[in-house]
Amino acid sequence: MNTAMISKNLGVLLLVEAASMLPSLLVAIIYKQNDISAFIITIIVLTIIGFIMYRIPARNKNFYTRDGFAIVSLGWILVSLFGALPFFISGAIPSYIDALFETVSGFTTTGSTILRDVESLPKGLLFWRSFTNWIGGMGVLVMMLAVLPAAGANTLHIMKAESPGPNPGKLVPKIGQSAKILYLMYIGLSLVQIVLLLIGGMPLFDTLIHTFSTAGTGGFSNMNNSVGAYNNLYFEIVIGVFMFLFGINFALYYQTLKGDIKSMIRDEEFRFYSFTAISAIVLITWNLWGSLFGTVWESLRHSFFQVSSIMTTTGFSSTNFDVWPVLSKTILIVLMFIGASAGSTGGGIKCLRFLLLFKTIKREVRRIIHPRAVYTVKYGGKTVSGDVLLGVMNYFFISIILFAISLILVSLDGFDMVSNFTAVAATINNIGPGLGMVGPTGNFADYSGLSKIVFSATMLFGRLEIYPMLILFAPTFWKRVNI
Amino acid sequence: MNTAMISKNLGVLLLVEAASMLPSLLVAIIYKQNDISAFIITIIVLTIIGFIMYRIPARNKNFYTRDGFAIVSLGWILVSLFGALPFFISGAIPSYIDALFETVSGFTTTGSTILRDVESLPKGLLFWRSFTNWIGGMGVLVMMLAVLPAAGANTLHIMKAESPGPNPGKLVPKIGQSAKILYLMYIGLSLVQIVLLLIGGMPLFDTLIHTFSTAGTGGFSNMNNSVGAYNNLYFEIVIGVFMFLFGINFALYYQTLKGDIKSMIRDEEFRFYSFTAISAIVLITWNLWGSLFGTVWESLRHSFFQVSSIMTTTGFSSTNFDVWPVLSKTILIVLMFIGASAGSTGGGIKCLRFLLLFKTIKREVRRIIHPRAVYTVKYGGKTVSGDVLLGVMNYFFISIILFAISLILVSLDGFDMVSNFTAVAATINNIGPGLGMVGPTGNFADYSGLSKIVFSATMLFGRLEIYPMLILFAPTFWKRVNI
Repeated sequence: MNTAMISKNLGVLLLVEAASMLPSLLVAIIYKQNDISAFIITIIVLTIIGFIMYRIPARNKNFYTRDGFAIVSLGWILVSLFGALPFFISGAIPSYIDALFETVSGFTTTGSTILRDVESLPKGLLFWRSFTNWIGGMGVLVMMLAVLPAAGANTLHIMKAESPGPNPGKLVPKIGQSAKILYLMYIGLSLVQIVLLLIGGMPLFDTLIHTFSTAGTGGFSNMNNSVGAYNNLYFEIVIGVFMFLFGINFALYYQTLKGDIKSMIRDEEFRFYSFTAISAIVLITWNLWGSLFGTVWESLRHSFFQVSSIMTTTGFSSTNFDVWPVLSKTILIVLMFIGASAGSTGGGIKCLRFLLLFKTIKREVRRIIHPRAVYTVKYGGKTVSGDVLLGVMNYFFISIILFAISLILVSLDGFDMVSNFTAVAATINNIGPGLGMVGPTGNFADYSGLSKIVFSATMLFGRLEIYPMLILFAPTFWKRVNI
Repeated sequence: MNTAMISKNLGVLLLVEAASMLPSLLVAIIYKQNDISAFIITIIVLTIIGFIMYRIPARNKNFYTRDGFAIVSLGWILVSLFGALPFFISGAIPSYIDALFETVSGFTTTGSTILRDVESLPKGLLFWRSFTNWIGGMGVLVMMLAVLPAAGANTLHIMKAESPGPNPGKLVPKIGQSAKILYLMYIGLSLVQIVLLLIGGMPLFDTLIHTFSTAGTGGFSNMNNSVGAYNNLYFEIVIGVFMFLFGINFALYYQTLKGDIKSMIRDEEFRFYSFTAISAIVLITWNLWGSLFGTVWESLRHSFFQVSSIMTTTGFSSTNFDVWPVLSKTILIVLMFIGASAGSTGGGIKCLRFLLLFKTIKREVRRIIHPRAVYTVKYGGKTVSGDVLLGVMNYFFISIILFAISLILVSLDGFDMVSNFTAVAATINNIGPGLGMVGPTGNFADYSGLSKIVFSATMLFGRLEIYPMLILFAPTFWKRVNI
């Protein structure tokens, strides 16, 4: 492990975090609330510690996969530990574990909250809370571009055109160009959403909050009743559509911008993603119509918004879907695990993985029927290697195992099974709300400190695609300090 | 597909079923209840149809994997369709779908029931009900020996010493010797249990019923309150221990009998199976002690019985575990999916698969930390091929997908989520009872006809290790009649 280089990188990260707190400080100053000093203190602490870590001399500049993974996992953890300070210092969230939960939930773009009354939070902190969603989403895009490809088959390369091909072990040194493109698209889409919401008459502050949380597929709102608080069809359509857009692989936008207009419609994952979403919308609309809403349009309105919100793992709500009929709720739970597209800011297991898994099953059935024929799994016209398939399956299995372990641990608190189950599903897949106690009108406040730590860990595991977190638990990872 | 040979084999199966109904007919005659004619009619129908199917001339005697799979899946379905007749004809179960559910539940050694009052059933039918558990268990042992190895990596070979090595495509023609050994061990263990229960003072009829259902890990009892009805510690210990014994790979008994005394302790799956069971027993005992039972012994008593029952997928209950604290119930749900050992009569995903999956994850983590080193997954000292690992992972994925699809379908009935979730878990893993509505004191009666058909299908999918059922849904399977 190249400790010095890891420390240097983490130092830069903390300096970036300090800078990213400035807009929130500005908001705090504008609204003159009691959160100003908390931001100033945190920014000073971040700058000092970040600078010290950055100045650690590094002789060996070689970087290996595990170093990259360590930066990702330790970076996300560190940034959360410090990002929680404004909530804690200001006294807005008196328990540090609660503040940490809220911040991890922000940076992992989850959107689960321990706040019983979001609206009572000072504006600066409200801004920071949603801003962590936005930064988190950006971080995810870069992580997928820069770090995960080095892990080979265990991750899914998203920018095939940009990725430097098989290069196991060493990290890609220059990814600047691709990252810049991603950032521009991310910021561009965010700006369009801001304009559209402003046109509809949403206040500027609310517009920023909701756009940050949409772009990062985080789902933090400044309203206790989330987007439903406005009861405004236009807002729901804009946010619903943009959630869907941010759940699409960003590489497809890039290809579309480069002139390959049909690339999106041709993309198998996009078709799987759209088909799943549309099927779910139709089924839920049918289920809600008559049983809960009088008209098909009212059913479609909430079905569309909720499916888009849950499948992209954003977590906004337009209505309290905890009171929906069981079929609709079960479909939403299944969507939680499917998640958004690979290469988007969304979480979950991802459509691409499911697509490859289904193709593998199809091949196995064919193999049994015609044992002598040779079948391969193809994606986008190319054969997918056995290693990649094994990696995808590994990922699926380990997700479920992590889910089961977390579920057992939070069961210690003794709350009902539906709340526990959906709370773990909502955190590991980075969605936000679940059902029951943690439903759209509820929150995670009543869980014990241990459970909140477990939830924070599952959010990180889910967001970082498991392996960067998992290696922290491997004894061999900590053994050799330098190689 | 060799239709003639398949038909011939299915014919024999029906004749065997007719013969296997004779003991139940005898019981019916002894007790002089109203189920005598129902058995006689069914036996006559089975004999005629079985004989006609057996007499179909077959020129081509070649057998391929898919033919074997077709015999397994169609065989289990046919035997259930006819096995339901005594319940239906006698009027004891007025709905044929209900009777079919009960029979599928029997032959798949599941033990889920639609009966609100088991004790009101005529004795002959009660006998037949549990006898299907016993025959089903026997069928499973032969299926794993004779048919599944031909599917290569998609299944787990259990009798490595006996299995004829890689022979993809063609089915093994002679497995008589191995099957005989399995039958003898199965019957031998059953006899020991019968004797032990009789010594404890259980009536002969009840002894037979509970032994049949223990051996097949089915779990049908003649008591509404299952084993708990006796409130007898001795019975619970005997049945608890024998459930555990029937959940062990039978190949290990064979090796032990051949003189290799240590083979069982050395076996990795046996250790995983025992370790998981003991951990669960300890955790649940701790959770029940104080919260539900006053003494640690009372907690241990029910924890041991319930863990043994659920993990081996038998499904007997010594108490109503639906009222247990959430942690205990969550652990039981996790055990439902883990299941018993490969090569036993138990269901679930199986310990061996989980063991291999965990080993694969460990290897992936090592690979990331040391990308240049070569790691292999070993089991029993031998390297496990990538194809086998891929097969195991496929199996895991498809189990979860089937689970999700079934869950959505049964959600249409609108019952609560815990009942639906555990009902699907209990049927796909061939356990029997779940929680809530389908808990130890409940039953499946209130579900709709559609849901009962879905449950019947999931029981068959689970019991037949998915693929034999899955190929029935592949259009290519039905395309070519002869090859």
